[in-house]
Amino acid sequence: MSSTKTEDELRARVAALEQQLAAALGSAQPSTTAGLVKRTKIATMSSEVVDSNPYSRLMALKRMGIVDNYERIRDFTVAIVGVGGVGSVAAEMLTRCGIGKLLLFDYDKVELANMNRLFFRPDQSGFSKVQAAQETLQGINPDVTIETHNYNVTTVANFAHFVGRIKEGSLTGGPVDLVLSCVDNFEARMAINQACNEIGQTWFESGVSENAVSGHIQLLIPGETACFACAPPLVVASGIDEKTLKRDGVCAASLPTTMGIVAGFLIQNTLKYLLKFGTVSRYLGYNAMLDFFPSMEFRPNEQCTNFHCRRQQQLYQEKLALQPKADGAVAAVAEEAVVHEDDFGIELVSDSAEPAVAGHNANAGLVAGVHRAYDAPAPSHHADAAVTSEISEAASLDLEDLQKQFMAMNSK
Amino acid sequence: MSSTKTEDELRARVAALEQQLAAALGSAQPSTTAGLVKRTKIATMSSEVVDSNPYSRLMALKRMGIVDNYERIRDFTVAIVGVGGVGSVAAEMLTRCGIGKLLLFDYDKVELANMNRLFFRPDQSGFSKVQAAQETLQGINPDVTIETHNYNVTTVANFAHFVGRIKEGSLTGGPVDLVLSCVDNFEARMAINQACNEIGQTWFESGVSENAVSGHIQLLIPGETACFACAPPLVVASGIDEKTLKRDGVCAASLPTTMGIVAGFLIQNTLKYLLKFGTVSRYLGYNAMLDFFPSMEFRPNEQCTNFHCRRQQQLYQEKLALQPKADGAVAAVAEEAVVHEDDFGIELVSDSAEPAVAGHNANAGLVAGVHRAYDAPAPSHHADAAVTSEISEAASLDLEDLQKQFMAMNSK
Repeated sequence: MSSTKTEDELRARVAALEQQLAAALGSAQPSTTAGLVKRTKIATMSSEVVDSNPYSRLMALKRMGIVDNYERIRDFTVAIVGVGGVGSVAAEMLTRCGIGKLLLFDYDKVELANMNRLFFRPDQSGFSKVQAAQETLQGINPDVTIETHNYNVTTVANFAHFVGRIKEGSLTGGPVDLVLSCVDNFEARMAINQACNEIGQTWFESGVSENAVSGHIQLLIPGETACFACAPPLVVASGIDEKTLKRDGVCAASLPTTMGIVAGFLIQNTLKYLLKFGTVSRYLGYNAMLDFFPSMEFRPNEQCTNFHCRRQQQLYQEKLALQPKADGAVAAVAEEAVVHEDDFGIELVSDSAEPAVAGHNANAGLVAGVHRAYDAPAPSHHADAAVTSEISEAASLDLEDLQKQFMAMNSK
Repeated sequence: MSSTKTEDELRARVAALEQQLAAALGSAQPSTTAGLVKRTKIATMSSEVVDSNPYSRLMALKRMGIVDNYERIRDFTVAIVGVGGVGSVAAEMLTRCGIGKLLLFDYDKVELANMNRLFFRPDQSGFSKVQAAQETLQGINPDVTIETHNYNVTTVANFAHFVGRIKEGSLTGGPVDLVLSCVDNFEARMAINQACNEIGQTWFESGVSENAVSGHIQLLIPGETACFACAPPLVVASGIDEKTLKRDGVCAASLPTTMGIVAGFLIQNTLKYLLKFGTVSRYLGYNAMLDFFPSMEFRPNEQCTNFHCRRQQQLYQEKLALQPKADGAVAAVAEEAVVHEDDFGIELVSDSAEPAVAGHNANAGLVAGVHRAYDAPAPSHHADAAVTSEISEAASLDLEDLQKQFMAMNSK
């Protein structure tokens, strides 16, 4: 029996699809008992210890006495700005932990040059990072709601939309529970800082140095801790001269190890913050050359140039004043930066840690080995800040507009 | 025109394949410029800064002054024993770094219950972990040679084969450059220890606690540092009572954060060891509750029960004796455990750190917050050691045979 033209076309289609499928799955043949198991949605998190329960090892945190109510993770919404070497791994960790909802913001495309970090695959090259991330994450855990925005948060139009999603993007239509900054440039950090100061949103900042061997995370609670404009970000010094970086044809170094560790610190502290266990680090640094981990705290700068930061400081002080019995937290605000002395009686930082001060240009007085990323946070100096991050790959045309808008807001 | 039976079957096949492909890729449609880009092999690592170069960010480590000769990574072979929550991420990091060759050992299958850790996908359920890992890793970087062994290294027959691959499994047919222990049970750690003592193979041990909030890595250089039998492994104390764990229907807790961080520490120190930069940590602990990172060193136990350890100690002392001018390394061996005091003048561990001693049962004298995982490393007590790891899921029938064989070897 000869085949028809339609049959031939269908056979060609089958062959093409089989080839694409093999490429998508790698080249091996699935065994008879394996392959293409699509994880179905799970209505309720169970503690049952069976191989088919993706939450058994997480729910065990309750039995171990670490977390009181692990299921609450499903109520939380986290926004991740920047889905690169740190943000993508952070998103995957939260997805595997069963977070309620993720909002992902990025405007970059996946490239082969990103393959030295975890998460993205070569076959995703050319896709937008948020689209590629959404596909991978939904495949891993369809229980998580994922909202993506393929835009640059620093443009004026996008900034307004970004603030709106932070205010109303949670599962219940209210503000998100936490914003994670995983961006690679100063402008985006300033935009996130502005948004969070405006609406009183707690956020974590993260960064990895251009020489790939140091990084940090920092918690920012508007009014209670320093904001990003109160003090320049700190970097763990590497002793490397980074002056020669900003030339054409030069890229920052990066390592999957450093970025994975910083993402791990970020999400571990996110879990501690959301699920209320352990001690949430306010600043945790990582120096890979020495396996050195500085820790410190920064109080807000009363002369901060950011109007909304000063307003949040006032609100926080008013809130504190309403609490008749001053506990340790109040004292800490008024005192010098708290030296972290834990239960082990081991000083993790020297007592030379210095609180944020206005008009700073000095690294003097900081914990040894830790430097400010730049001296003065004036708009004209912002290019220097990339020292804490990867090189900014796209200078937004709208940046000057945004800066003007920020200045107008802040002069209120 | 009505369709034939063959056409209907072909249409059904096309529909099924389209569905499978969509599942494999996630649900989004690939854009015209994206998708199914298969990464081709690259003959020479280039520093060229273009989006299509997967090594540009790694080769930049040379320009930054971190690594002298990054390309050397292609000459190295690393064996990873245990491809679970730590081992799979470790393998992915080395693959993305462009390691020459990986040897992967595991005998477990991927289950949905593993989805709270990074790396494996739900659609890989039922595949052997080494097969699933190989497919994913070759898709990420086809330049890496990957050799897999789907067996338990603790059985007598497999142990002999395992030793053979460690001795002859490198790219040039010689010994591997490093063995990484990412296993979840005491028996497998003892088998790796035995193999490495026998052939003088340097290795890293890693572990994560059953409550998911602490972990560690430890470097073991036969004759120079304590072996796994010289001293029980140390765990960072969490203050959690772990006595109630070993019941049916109870599983260890685990988190993608803790496991990702431990994998990151392990591979960062592997890179430092292989590419000769920074300081390689001999023991680095992680307490997630407090973000506390103890560090210490252990000298070998002259009365170690392991014959090959004692032999390696003798060889090391003979080697040292041949070096006329004693440098710092020699002094360190003879002295108490070295207290890590880095360039920053900050003591990372208290000076109560205690070297390994025979017949120990005491946590007394150890760095505060760090406990021994168990008291006496006698064979009858080995079940207690799982405190440093996930629960051992398969008690090998051949274990007693192996223990007898080890004892016969060690009584030489």
